[in-house]
Amino acid sequence: MRAVQVVGYHQNLEMTELPIPTPSGPFDVIVKIGGAGVCRTDLHILEGQWAEKSQVQLPYTIGHENAGWVAAVGSAVTNVAEGDKVIVHPLITCGLCRACRSGDDVHCEANQFPGIDTNGGYAEYLKTSARSVVRIDDALEPSDVAALADAGLTAYHAAAKAAKRLGPRDRAVVIGAGGLGHIGIQVLKALSPAELIVVDRNPEAVKLAEAIGADHGVTADGSQVDRVLELTGGHGAEVVVDFVGEGGATAEGVAMLRRAGDYHVVGYGENIDVPTIDIISTEINFIGNLVGSYNDLCDLMALAARGAVTLHTQKYTLDDFQSAITDLDSGNVRGRAILIP
Amino acid sequence: MRAVQVVGYHQNLEMTELPIPTPSGPFDVIVKIGGAGVCRTDLHILEGQWAEKSQVQLPYTIGHENAGWVAAVGSAVTNVAEGDKVIVHPLITCGLCRACRSGDDVHCEANQFPGIDTNGGYAEYLKTSARSVVRIDDALEPSDVAALADAGLTAYHAAAKAAKRLGPRDRAVVIGAGGLGHIGIQVLKALSPAELIVVDRNPEAVKLAEAIGADHGVTADGSQVDRVLELTGGHGAEVVVDFVGEGGATAEGVAMLRRAGDYHVVGYGENIDVPTIDIISTEINFIGNLVGSYNDLCDLMALAARGAVTLHTQKYTLDDFQSAITDLDSGNVRGRAILIP
Amino acid sequence: MRAVQVVGYHQNLEMTELPIPTPSGPFDVIVKIGGAGVCRTDLHILEGQWAEKSQVQLPYTIGHENAGWVAAVGSAVTNVAEGDKVIVHPLITCGLCRACRSGDDVHCEANQFPGIDTNGGYAEYLKTSARSVVRIDDALEPSDVAALADAGLTAYHAAAKAAKRLGPRDRAVVIGAGGLGHIGIQVLKALSPAELIVVDRNPEAVKLAEAIGADHGVTADGSQVDRVLELTGGHGAEVVVDFVGEGGATAEGVAMLRRAGDYHVVGYGENIDVPTIDIISTEINFIGNLVGSYNDLCDLMALAARGAVTLHTQKYTLDDFQSAITDLDSGNVRGRAILIP
Amino acid sequence: MRAVQVVGYHQNLEMTELPIPTPSGPFDVIVKIGGAGVCRTDLHILEGQWAEKSQVQLPYTIGHENAGWVAAVGSAVTNVAEGDKVIVHPLITCGLCRACRSGDDVHCEANQFPGIDTNGGYAEYLKTSARSVVRIDDALEPSDVAALADAGLTAYHAAAKAAKRLGPRDRAVVIGAGGLGHIGIQVLKALSPAELIVVDRNPEAVKLAEAIGADHGVTADGSQVDRVLELTGGHGAEVVVDFVGEGGATAEGVAMLRRAGDYHVVGYGENIDVPTIDIISTEINFIGNLVGSYNDLCDLMALAARGAVTLHTQKYTLDDFQSAITDLDSGNVRGRAILIP
Repeated sequence: MRAVQVVGYHQNLEMTELPIPTPSGPFDVIVKIGGAGVCRTDLHILEGQWAEKSQVQLPYTIGHENAGWVAAVGSAVTNVAEGDKVIVHPLITCGLCRACRSGDDVHCEANQFPGIDTNGGYAEYLKTSARSVVRIDDALEPSDVAALADAGLTAYHAAAKAAKRLGPRDRAVVIGAGGLGHIGIQVLKALSPAELIVVDRNPEAVKLAEAIGADHGVTADGSQVDRVLELTGGHGAEVVVDFVGEGGATAEGVAMLRRAGDYHVVGYGENIDVPTIDIISTEINFIGNLVGSYNDLCDLMALAARGAVTLHTQKYTLDDFQSAITDLDSGNVRGRAILIP
Repeated sequence: MRAVQVVGYHQNLEMTELPIPTPSGPFDVIVKIGGAGVCRTDLHILEGQWAEKSQVQLPYTIGHENAGWVAAVGSAVTNVAEGDKVIVHPLITCGLCRACRSGDDVHCEANQFPGIDTNGGYAEYLKTSARSVVRIDDALEPSDVAALADAGLTAYHAAAKAAKRLGPRDRAVVIGAGGLGHIGIQVLKALSPAELIVVDRNPEAVKLAEAIGADHGVTADGSQVDRVLELTGGHGAEVVVDFVGEGGATAEGVAMLRRAGDYHVVGYGENIDVPTIDIISTEINFIGNLVGSYNDLCDLMALAARGAVTLHTQKYTLDDFQSAITDLDSGNVRGRAILIP
Repeated sequence: MRAVQVVGYHQNLEMTELPIPTPSGPFDVIVKIGGAGVCRTDLHILEGQWAEKSQVQLPYTIGHENAGWVAAVGSAVTNVAEGDKVIVHPLITCGLCRACRSGDDVHCEANQFPGIDTNGGYAEYLKTSARSVVRIDDALEPSDVAALADAGLTAYHAAAKAAKRLGPRDRAVVIGAGGLGHIGIQVLKALSPAELIVVDRNPEAVKLAEAIGADHGVTADGSQVDRVLELTGGHGAEVVVDFVGEGGATAEGVAMLRRAGDYHVVGYGENIDVPTIDIISTEINFIGNLVGSYNDLCDLMALAARGAVTLHTQKYTLDDFQSAITDLDSGNVRGRAILIP
Repeated sequence: MRAVQVVGYHQNLEMTELPIPTPSGPFDVIVKIGGAGVCRTDLHILEGQWAEKSQVQLPYTIGHENAGWVAAVGSAVTNVAEGDKVIVHPLITCGLCRACRSGDDVHCEANQFPGIDTNGGYAEYLKTSARSVVRIDDALEPSDVAALADAGLTAYHAAAKAAKRLGPRDRAVVIGAGGLGHIGIQVLKALSPAELIVVDRNPEAVKLAEAIGADHGVTADGSQVDRVLELTGGHGAEVVVDFVGEGGATAEGVAMLRRAGDYHVVGYGENIDVPTIDIISTEINFIGNLVGSYNDLCDLMALAARGAVTLHTQKYTLDDFQSAITDLDSGNVRGRAILIP
């Protein structure tokens, strides 16, 4: 089969020919790829930023946002069968550690991450696990939902955690209406009755946010903290979900937060750097957010099936992978780039 | 009556004679002081650190950790009567704002703080509110429990929040076994089945911690992070409750925290300064903790009544207030100093 | 002022002339009535069903679903002022007992219930408490929202409790799409992403349910249990909210419930009569629901202000009270009957 | 190997010789039995009460409370190895359904129950799954903890659920201080700070309850409801955990419950038969409780390892199985009967 591999850092990806993977373990599932998302993390991998952390051996196949059809299953697989249309959770988890036994499989003590530390989905076929595949609704196409497997799932996870405390009188601020924020807004709208305020530097993104559910859009032109305080009666919002996490976003975001509020960290780059006296005197919380669990992905697919969460995609053939990478790197992708074998 | 007042910053407190307060509003309660705790915050007030924040007019009576007997009540007071033995919640709250209506009265939008921004309890009588007084068990003495009204209540609040997620297989690290930590350890022991690890620089404090419930005491001699990791199978603890918050405690504390763990900020001084990428990749949380609510104080008094939480006190007469202040400032108080009119 | 009173059981209500009430206690609030809901409970009062329970002295003014404008306030009232447009929580609560201090004021140990055990709102003015009035949005009219004060509030409370466990893959069954169910459906839609199945004997009510948010309407013609099982993959729903509670509804409702599901009891009449072995082997729960708290009413008013919850009303002048009672008794009220002074 | 089998209903069990089981599936685990609990359910099986429900083919090996040492493992087992000392969760679960993925594996859609619907542990060896074995502390002996695998686990599950809402001012009533209640009392003591009131008909059981943690023992001699009301200030308890569920226990237990309280159903026999008007006017809940999850069993083993939960056992050799059955049936077992191969 064709597969696009990392052959060296600071080098272009290369197309190669590999054998189609087959199930070797009892829980293995082989997925025929219908769409593979091209993510900013993929650019970072090429820059070598993940080399030490992942310890991956080169060459290997990149791509961690995958969806398609089940092509073959191991001997103990009972939840999917050949031909099933599926989205693939980004992690392969053990199912036996305390985290896995608690539904918190993202913190599995023995996980693998295809596309990061083992072969991923810029290919015709992917080897994953029965514990990682979610059957999707007949109405959904793999190439349309692939990018929900990681970027969308992270946004879902944070928004769903944030929504748990939000009632009809509460306000939630979303910082950043880009790829993740875009999904986060739709999820907050579906899961909570709170008033949604969305902040972004880009007026176009603000407009889009308003179109998909934001009650108030705020352009980050220097007045954004004042504007949010004004929209929240001077108190700030009960919840801030920060999809940016760099360029001063966190200091501004904290200034938008109400006493006893929750600050959800999703985007990253800078430090959370806040005096402990401010944390205790206002009793605010900083909540970390990693990618969502298997259950989160099932929930997100339920929302997607009824059209409550949609994603704009820009599609490329697998052979044209370099265009997708180049377009993403130069800011020419609207929504998410998807490779289709 | 006699009352000890702040007459100027960077000056000694002075004893003066004032009229006994009387109920003027319908919910006013006058408490005859049985004991008033002398707190490090009182030293900070004298240094002027609270002047701007509290906007208090000098002179005023200091003292925010109070207990005694009800001496008089306003026309609408139904929960206490003259002669009742009570401990006094440090805040006077409105009862009508959203926070008050939610049991979260510490975030009352219109609160007063006797001893900080209005007359407090270094005196024979204190004016407070029906919403602030908690009847205490016959077996408890006001002078023994007064210091639980603020320092103890803060420790209770943080420990009780932390305990909510702790099960029999979890570990909690308490950083700092001083005044607050001492209470926090007893509360964690009473409310949770988790294994308790207590870290302090002072070997005597570590010994005391072990005597009152710590499963493991760790002296902070430079090896404390390694020691905690060793005691937690290399993973860190599910919960860290940090009663120190300065001198590098937070960086060390974060290193003791397990993936998906909760870091409770109680002590303060330095900044929480952590890369957002570390927060999201381990999915840890930082939880702010202010003083406890009225309900927390009721719960703490229930624990005190059955001897589950005790506090060492060093008692002084009200007239001898300067000795208490001097002893505290010079590190010569064991447990908490209490003034008795 | 004019007031409509119960003068004897099994007798008609009578209009009388009473002095306008004035604030006597510090927290008293006098409300000029803009609308008073006529409730089935009012018919039951006239039949004497509440006589023993309420111990009310006759004659007294009936009416427990009230909204209007603040006309006068007691000396300690700070949350509303003369002229404010308000809805009135049905209970007057003490603010000092443990339930009140926990935001759970419906279980206040010393409450009064105007219209049931003291003078209510079929009148020009009502005496209530600062703790019972909720300012409403400029866009809302007292006569439009009055019936949300009790019937709507009960439905909100149950639906909001039920919604807490409902995710995108869950199903909720609402039994009964009448007055309360009608509100419950709108609330579940606003607060949860679950699929909603609504069951009613009346095909018109089923149609209305579908128009206001039900994903599936089921006419209770004998096949309703089978139909719900079919709609839930044979498993039953995670949540059943039963607004009927009589005529066999509970046995049918339990048959519609999934393993580990929650059965919310709201309507009443018959017994819950279920073998303990069935309760433990399926691990189901029965959850009682009384009227909502003050906070619930604030939340409901937030939903009403944005049009997420609406109620059909049929208006009568206060003088025409007998027509409203007669119409309700004979089934000729669509939505809720409201008296306007 | 020797194995004790059900060969017909209303007949005695019979010892037979069977091949030692071997791992056939990738997650199979073979356990050399160290102790197998003899449970009242085993008597019910012999009476044919489970025949229809379990659909088991006779003959088969009985025994569902098992502990021992790992003797062999399937190809995909990573959590235990030969020689490990383990207790065995009573269910074999699939690991892939929604319940299993949520940590709620007791509601697995495709479970097996050795000793009930397939071969169990009255034998030298048992075949179970990697998902069912919990390694136990070196200090624990299989024959001492075997009975915690089902009876103890059920009590743990109910007590741990009940404890979640219990604070220092709350009261919990335990009805029934027999096998399960005995464990429930110890668990409530370990997990909650509530005051414990234990009710039993047998004065000896009441005494034992007081010895292991009950704050108040109440002999059920007809005055038990009054006595509990007296001990709870006339209000009833926040939580009742009913380990009896028959002979009028539920009606009495409901009378002991406070407004807004939780009634935990564990024991079974009679019906919960309560007017819906009582459920809604007091807003009480009935909470079903099945056996605990794998995580519950891990937690219970953590408590057992530190001596917080202990169980009296009466040991018999496997060959002497009939004595154990006869003693249990005639009320001559103190604590739990255990068979040791």
